[in-house]
Amino acid sequence: MTYCVGMSLEKGLVMLSDSRTNAGIDHINTFRKMTYFEEPNERVLVLMSAGNLAITQSLLSLLKEHLHSENPQTNLLRVPNMFEAARCIGDTLREVHKRDGATLREFNLDFTASFILGGQIKGEPPRLFQIYAAGNFIEASEDTPFFQIGEIKYGKPIVDRVVKRSTSLIEAAKCALISMDSTIRSNLSVGLPLDLLIVRRDELKITCHVSIDQDNEYFNLLRSSWGNSLREAFQQLPNPEWLNCSCQ
Amino acid sequence: MTYCVGMSLEKGLVMLSDSRTNAGIDHINTFRKMTYFEEPNERVLVLMSAGNLAITQSLLSLLKEHLHSENPQTNLLRVPNMFEAARCIGDTLREVHKRDGATLREFNLDFTASFILGGQIKGEPPRLFQIYAAGNFIEASEDTPFFQIGEIKYGKPIVDRVVKRSTSLIEAAKCALISMDSTIRSNLSVGLPLDLLIVRRDELKITCHVSIDQDNEYFNLLRSSWGNSLREAFQQLPNPEWLNCSCQ
Repeated sequence: MTYCVGMSLEKGLVMLSDSRTNAGIDHINTFRKMTYFEEPNERVLVLMSAGNLAITQSLLSLLKEHLHSENPQTNLLRVPNMFEAARCIGDTLREVHKRDGATLREFNLDFTASFILGGQIKGEPPRLFQIYAAGNFIEASEDTPFFQIGEIKYGKPIVDRVVKRSTSLIEAAKCALISMDSTIRSNLSVGLPLDLLIVRRDELKITCHVSIDQDNEYFNLLRSSWGNSLREAFQQLPNPEWLNCSCQ
Repeated sequence: MTYCVGMSLEKGLVMLSDSRTNAGIDHINTFRKMTYFEEPNERVLVLMSAGNLAITQSLLSLLKEHLHSENPQTNLLRVPNMFEAARCIGDTLREVHKRDGATLREFNLDFTASFILGGQIKGEPPRLFQIYAAGNFIEASEDTPFFQIGEIKYGKPIVDRVVKRSTSLIEAAKCALISMDSTIRSNLSVGLPLDLLIVRRDELKITCHVSIDQDNEYFNLLRSSWGNSLREAFQQLPNPEWLNCSCQ
């Protein structure tokens, strides 16, 4: 399984992914789920993937092959804007589906794949998209400034409550890490190392990209403190004494 | 959808269920998902259900029919212990499956149903079971003192962090309500009113059973305070300043 979250904020983009893939609990591997395409001062695109690893790897291989193409519809370094970038990825995914879909079906395997694409191309603000297995996609908005893919539910409540368009990049990164911690704690198949990537608006390059493993002091502090903070917050809320039924 | 959580604590049982069922978002109804069987001073059994409403209602109707039976294997008011109560429910569910399973399959519908059974029968401590669609079941333990069914993921992190066997009944009830709030906030298909039921150890009756609707002051307070507490706890954690990448 996988957990990735992408946030589109006034000041830029925050993207976080785990790196565990599994096919049964005795077959767990580490594969990066974040890839970026960068042409400094001109464009930066970040793609995170969840789903069947054979499918997502095929997609990435095709996207990389197309980087040598002159066609501005298939080459992510030449597409004129982020909408066309999302279309390009959707179309490439349909190529993979055309090739593999029927065979997978014969083996009773679903064609599962989903993606978060964030980035900025000169002339536009940063934009964030979620791309589905069918190659269609949606864009983040003022009201929905984040997308999640993979094992999304455990980590959703904290992002729902904290992240707005006006949240700073550094706080959004903290929130993404707490959301990831909740997911890792509840689901064995999501695991370290993590890829955290920030794109500051109008810098048109990767502002910062760090890998977070089990020795990362900050993440370890966050993990232990967040659990304690939650328990303290819980203690501070009043008990339902009104139940008044000798339950105290 | 549904969300139910049952907790088995040193001092007794806490059970909480929502009451929304839906078949598509334009078809939302309110049905109670909690039923109890009580013979004061002798036994108290509480059953919560999730899944296909036709299946869970059939099961309940059969269980109620069997209350007139002399057979100690099929009558929940006569089974000798909680293990046999769980078997009785599993067997009855298999009756429903025998009758409806094949037809449902023809309509491409899964036989989905899951249950949490909690209770105490004189001579035993309180016990808590989770019963699956196939009629098999597991029992809560020291290490796993709670079960959830339905839309379980949003509300799991807080229960994971707070509830132990030693948690008091009133705190467990508070935690169950916070867990429900996280679920309702993230999933439209889980909704009020809620059924909250507490069985204090060795009382051998329902200690307290309340219905919580949108006018319940305590639940409304919990909902608003918990959001604020989470945001405060979030603010108090240090930001990842070490990223050191002009992201502040």
